[in-house]
Amino acid sequence: MIICRSVEEMRQWLRAQSAYRTGKTRTVGLVPTMGYLHDGHLSLVKRAKRENDYTVLSIFVNPLQFGPTEDFERYPRDEERDLALAEGVGTDAVFLPSLGAMYPDKPLTTVQVAGITEALCGASRPGHFDGVATVVSKLFHIVDPDRAYFGMKDAQQVAVLTQMVNDLNLDTTIVRCPTLREADGLALSSRNVYLTPEERSQATVLYKALQALREALKDRELTVAQAERLLMDTIQQSPLAVIEYAEVRTFPRLEAPARESRMMEWIEHQGTALIAALAVKFGNTRLIDNMVFDHDPE
Amino acid sequence: MIICRSVEEMRQWLRAQSAYRTGKTRTVGLVPTMGYLHDGHLSLVKRAKRENDYTVLSIFVNPLQFGPTEDFERYPRDEERDLALAEGVGTDAVFLPSLGAMYPDKPLTTVQVAGITEALCGASRPGHFDGVATVVSKLFHIVDPDRAYFGMKDAQQVAVLTQMVNDLNLDTTIVRCPTLREADGLALSSRNVYLTPEERSQATVLYKALQALREALKDRELTVAQAERLLMDTIQQSPLAVIEYAEVRTFPRLEAPARESRMMEWIEHQGTALIAALAVKFGNTRLIDNMVFDHDPE
Repeated sequence: MIICRSVEEMRQWLRAQSAYRTGKTRTVGLVPTMGYLHDGHLSLVKRAKRENDYTVLSIFVNPLQFGPTEDFERYPRDEERDLALAEGVGTDAVFLPSLGAMYPDKPLTTVQVAGITEALCGASRPGHFDGVATVVSKLFHIVDPDRAYFGMKDAQQVAVLTQMVNDLNLDTTIVRCPTLREADGLALSSRNVYLTPEERSQATVLYKALQALREALKDRELTVAQAERLLMDTIQQSPLAVIEYAEVRTFPRLEAPARESRMMEWIEHQGTALIAALAVKFGNTRLIDNMVFDHDPE
Repeated sequence: MIICRSVEEMRQWLRAQSAYRTGKTRTVGLVPTMGYLHDGHLSLVKRAKRENDYTVLSIFVNPLQFGPTEDFERYPRDEERDLALAEGVGTDAVFLPSLGAMYPDKPLTTVQVAGITEALCGASRPGHFDGVATVVSKLFHIVDPDRAYFGMKDAQQVAVLTQMVNDLNLDTTIVRCPTLREADGLALSSRNVYLTPEERSQATVLYKALQALREALKDRELTVAQAERLLMDTIQQSPLAVIEYAEVRTFPRLEAPARESRMMEWIEHQGTALIAALAVKFGNTRLIDNMVFDHDPE
């Protein structure tokens, strides 16, 4: 496994691989991460390996996507462990740029996606998705991947990046990968390490709420308002949980369906996927989770 | 010469050329235009041909970069003549997409460059450079050129796109090419066809003002304020000319130097290039021109 710490090293390695080409096209899969890898990330690498000739894992904690009061400084980092895990699943190259390698000068250019970025996490994290879209477009320009792999835990990120790729004609396919969970249902996240034992124990309520909604959808009359009520009531059974949002939206456009409309009407008759999306704080730790409902529900 | 009217056709042709690769890298030069070609455009194609294996000319009148009161609808178009001129200078492929091929759905994604876009044309054409940066990033993603050629008549566009390429790690070199002029000094522009004979005759005043400034710079004490005064006084000798701006700025950052500072102090001692930039209306026709002063002046 090679480790590239500058844009030029990364490009040199990629060029060297393509120099082996003899008419046959070699494909590259990219797994963009902020490091502190868990099994969710590793499942993306494994899938990228199955579907491409070469797999590049990028590790970069991107300051552009953190707000001034957010956890950029204390975001967990463990380079040595990350590299061992990456090598363990057969990553071909790790792109591990320094801050100065990614932003040698104060950047003036921003990639902005309107609409999709305004709801859910975009409402409470202004500029977050601009930072995500900007850094991912940089990574795509550096690595030029055929496919890029993202976990559906960050469903809004997947929606924003898919829109960016389509609008800007990027020659990369965004591959949506299922959320990985602990045995008790908690979605894997690098931020789970922030949780105290008591918070960790109560944090399972996000997935419980999503499961409760999946169950409640057997009632074909269930409205969007009733679904959101159910999500909130379930989460509020955990005394440490502070809800930031618990909403039903269309997916991937993230538009708000009429509150009195029936969820199954959207899904089955209109063919529109819906997402139930949650953001819940436990102390200073903000957790997100979601479930997408479409013709073939999870 | 091949003509590609869709993104997929363009990519297929480019892939077919690279299929001839046998280890040797073939380079692609791109000349992005809005058509109604003149000798300025053709000089870009000729240079691209000298410096690359394949040359692609794109012709697309991009609605995103026109304001609501601007000339998108009446912008001059002549596809047949453009194709004959392109073939005449040995263009390999013309990318000539329809509006629907470039924007199949309402685009939500914008590439924005801060700072550089706020002065000069950016001040009177809000959103113009967002439209330019967005469409050029699309063209770069579709054609993936090694080099892209732009005329220095649109110096602010060159500055904005160079910043975008650097900030977003696009693997393309922006090549600055000199402004071509009529025998009497008027910078070539597709919009020159709008001018009445009387306006056309007076439009030479832009270049006269720039030449007068170059001459005045023999006085090493000349200040920025004096230079701007000279530009305005010269232009106002043409009764039909209505000045939008006549300014001295740093290049390529387009910052405003202190008005009482001496131009030659910037250029020689601080090593900062300065640009004298003009936008002047004749009737409904808006003309721009500029001259860059650096250690090796034009």
